[in-house]
Amino acid sequence: MTRNHTPKSLAVLLRARMHPDAIPSPPPQLSPTPPLTDPDPAAPPAASVRHWLHAAASAASPAPSTLDSFSDGYRSLDRVGRREVLRSLAIDYDVPRARVRDLMRQYMSVASAAAAGGDGAEAEEGKEGAAAALYRMERGLREALRPRYAGFLEAMNAQPGGLKLLAVLRADLLALLGEENAPALRALDSYLKEKLVTWLSPAALTLHQITWDDPASLLEKIVAYEAVHPIRNLIDLKRRLGVGRRCFGYFHPAIPGEPLIFIEVALHKDMAASIQEVLWDEPPTPESEASCALFYSISSTQPGLSGINLGKFLLKRVIDMLRRDMPSVQIYATLSPIPGFMQWLRAKLASQIKLAETESQEGNSLEGASSTFRESILLPDEEKMIHDAIEQAHGKQGSELLQDTLKTTQWVKSEKLSAALKSPLMRLCARYLAREKIRGKALDAVANFHLQNGAMIERINWMADQSEKGIQQSGGIMVNYLYRLENIEEYALSYSGKGLVHSSPSLSQYLEQGIISAIGYLDQEDDSVPSFLCSLWA
Amino acid sequence: MTRNHTPKSLAVLLRARMHPDAIPSPPPQLSPTPPLTDPDPAAPPAASVRHWLHAAASAASPAPSTLDSFSDGYRSLDRVGRREVLRSLAIDYDVPRARVRDLMRQYMSVASAAAAGGDGAEAEEGKEGAAAALYRMERGLREALRPRYAGFLEAMNAQPGGLKLLAVLRADLLALLGEENAPALRALDSYLKEKLVTWLSPAALTLHQITWDDPASLLEKIVAYEAVHPIRNLIDLKRRLGVGRRCFGYFHPAIPGEPLIFIEVALHKDMAASIQEVLWDEPPTPESEASCALFYSISSTQPGLSGINLGKFLLKRVIDMLRRDMPSVQIYATLSPIPGFMQWLRAKLASQIKLAETESQEGNSLEGASSTFRESILLPDEEKMIHDAIEQAHGKQGSELLQDTLKTTQWVKSEKLSAALKSPLMRLCARYLAREKIRGKALDAVANFHLQNGAMIERINWMADQSEKGIQQSGGIMVNYLYRLENIEEYALSYSGKGLVHSSPSLSQYLEQGIISAIGYLDQEDDSVPSFLCSLWA
Repeated sequence: MTRNHTPKSLAVLLRARMHPDAIPSPPPQLSPTPPLTDPDPAAPPAASVRHWLHAAASAASPAPSTLDSFSDGYRSLDRVGRREVLRSLAIDYDVPRARVRDLMRQYMSVASAAAAGGDGAEAEEGKEGAAAALYRMERGLREALRPRYAGFLEAMNAQPGGLKLLAVLRADLLALLGEENAPALRALDSYLKEKLVTWLSPAALTLHQITWDDPASLLEKIVAYEAVHPIRNLIDLKRRLGVGRRCFGYFHPAIPGEPLIFIEVALHKDMAASIQEVLWDEPPTPESEASCALFYSISSTQPGLSGINLGKFLLKRVIDMLRRDMPSVQIYATLSPIPGFMQWLRAKLASQIKLAETESQEGNSLEGASSTFRESILLPDEEKMIHDAIEQAHGKQGSELLQDTLKTTQWVKSEKLSAALKSPLMRLCARYLAREKIRGKALDAVANFHLQNGAMIERINWMADQSEKGIQQSGGIMVNYLYRLENIEEYALSYSGKGLVHSSPSLSQYLEQGIISAIGYLDQEDDSVPSFLCSLWA
Repeated sequence: MTRNHTPKSLAVLLRARMHPDAIPSPPPQLSPTPPLTDPDPAAPPAASVRHWLHAAASAASPAPSTLDSFSDGYRSLDRVGRREVLRSLAIDYDVPRARVRDLMRQYMSVASAAAAGGDGAEAEEGKEGAAAALYRMERGLREALRPRYAGFLEAMNAQPGGLKLLAVLRADLLALLGEENAPALRALDSYLKEKLVTWLSPAALTLHQITWDDPASLLEKIVAYEAVHPIRNLIDLKRRLGVGRRCFGYFHPAIPGEPLIFIEVALHKDMAASIQEVLWDEPPTPESEASCALFYSISSTQPGLSGINLGKFLLKRVIDMLRRDMPSVQIYATLSPIPGFMQWLRAKLASQIKLAETESQEGNSLEGASSTFRESILLPDEEKMIHDAIEQAHGKQGSELLQDTLKTTQWVKSEKLSAALKSPLMRLCARYLAREKIRGKALDAVANFHLQNGAMIERINWMADQSEKGIQQSGGIMVNYLYRLENIEEYALSYSGKGLVHSSPSLSQYLEQGIISAIGYLDQEDDSVPSFLCSLWA
């Protein structure tokens, strides 16, 4: 591990300590794109960087000095300059289409000649020759179908510091794609992502347990990049690396001193039901008594590696290591946020309220058509409890009251409101996690991550994360995903193949409760299939 | 580094110590293919291994347990079984040709439609759509042109121990290709090699200085794999890792505890002219007085990685590191073997003697035609010296006498013979190194390696390696290649582009001596261009 001590090494830690509630942001030198303002007057213009790009992309094996000039030049460009270079890379060093078409024509004629060959020894020999020609031409076609920037990207990756530069470049590209979704840029992103997946193969990554003995320059990065439960001060950090806790990072030799992704683990007697127990409750369980390894945070550090699933392999290796080192641990579970729950619920409430308004304006004239889209989000009991809890209901529907209530996080402070919201939020959260899908996958990104790795949904926990962020994201609910070692492969396969979500009986209770009450409720109005069993979010 | 202590850890060292002249061979567990005899009766048959191959190669993401079963099964197969599996891999999981042809037809029609599009805003929009379609189809074609085993190889590489298995598999494949040069097997080798180059990108490799403090299991491998100057005993090994010496290995995270390639360096006052000075002369130069870093051995450890140039990057990184750590070192040079010299010379002598015989039998009738192929290997002075040194010449030509003499290594023991051979062997060796080419590259593999990395030929040294192997390979001559930091990039480019070999004035002397004398000599017979300036070895 390179010990790259800068005078700023402890700055982030100290700053975080001074302002315990501040969410630390990545230190400035780590941010991918410098701001538009304040360009360095001594920096080379984009034209020079494009010149080096041309020199590097045209050479069979680009000189290291050219690649270095490109890297330094690119890093010093402002946003506009970087975008100019990215567009040039995507368009000027594209797939050589004329060559591809020529090779295809040749290939098609050889392939049909090979298929038309006769019998006998001579034909046999001809077939062998034709097979050899096909293999050669397929190789040629594979080569020609590579964009001309392929060689440049590969040479850059082989260069010291090159992988990091490519990660920065992709982060810039993703930002650009957000504004300008051009086919050439999309193709560059797709190609670069594919290469990064290969280069960042788990075989090339090293697992390292991060401890209090690691260099401050590394710990600084843990503080800066912890995305799930921000590290508030030195004491918080030290506890996360101390007794009853583990932190593992995945490192790549080309990016030393900085994990690409890291995971935090708590060793407990039981599966914890709130983040409070994990982060703050003292003292920790003696390690010899721990029977549950609880993964409570996974953070990746490189925005440019977005979409590359390193977490899956990290989790697998950490489980393997803990199994070997801590035979007393029998339960491998997470305590995870549900980042999309509230966003989904708010959208759901808004659309249903709008549908209800339209219906009442049109005097139920479209009843047959609209009722297939309309659903009652709340069960009758839940409606009643919410009405009872709110004094000034002004004759509003339960869903409108819920929408109003969830606009801020103030409801947490009222015991009555909290009690009234618990039942609907827990039920809807179970449904959101286990039923709501997009393209056959769980809508919630964290749920999708763990389900595709072979976990099941074990338990949802009320008031498990009472931080402002926790209440805003998921009404304070957190979820335990459980990795049952004997089922991991099977669950991963049935989820990726058939979209099957495995969940525990405790979760099924919430889901059935919805169905039974809803059917009862809907029966009073019509007898169609409860529409909320189909996802409206797909 | 994994400390994989086996009871055998020191066995090789101890055995080597007991038999100081024995060349240690790799320990049995490292040899890629088990012998044909003595198959394990409990081992699974090739059919089971093919079954796992099928399960793994058919799945979108193969289960780790299936890949493990394949690995274990493959390793336990004998040679015949392994070859059956390799053939199945190459043929049954080949490129899906029908799909490739379908996609090509679609691509060609979209590409011509895109080219035929008109002007105006609508056409512009159509063009954007067509461009997006082309990119998508190119991606699809790249995907379809990948052999169906591609996904299997990638999943295997991502698996713990998978990279090593793939290296074993390629070593087996190379051995099979030596006997059965089928197009499908060649295509598999070419594809696998391409993937290995990507996976073993220098960005994924870690440089580690190997010292006497490293685990015995690692040092054992250095002893086993040192291919240039075998390590004779523990004292020899300890000296190579001690004061005035360096040993650096390139490690991949997926193959821990074993370098893929390693290099040995001696720190001297001057560029050493014999391996004796490097390996045996005592005491070493104090490091503060060293001004020359001499690379005297590079060995790679994985036969399955043959043809993948890891040495180039290793050398570059070691030079960079030494430049930083040892500013007093000004000269970066090698003391290298010339593994192909004697083989080339013997072939040259044999063909020239045969040509001369044919000519004398046919009574010079074909003089005009044959003289363009015939050349005098020895200069007149050299002929004379060899005749004088050999008592029973029996009226033989100098080249015949040289051929006879070089059949054994006994000539080294005769002072008179050695003195007579020095001049022709040194001159011919300079010519062999600097002039003899194959496909535009130096015929000698070690020369080609250093020249393509940007070195120049600085000096050849008489009686520099008096070991049996050294005399047999190169008549005891060794060569210093010099890396001039300011010229490395330029020399590498002009060698790879134009086949230009840079050499010092001392080497040019030998080369010119040949030309001048030869022209004088040939003038007596005919006035054609001296034919030995053109390579007959291409």
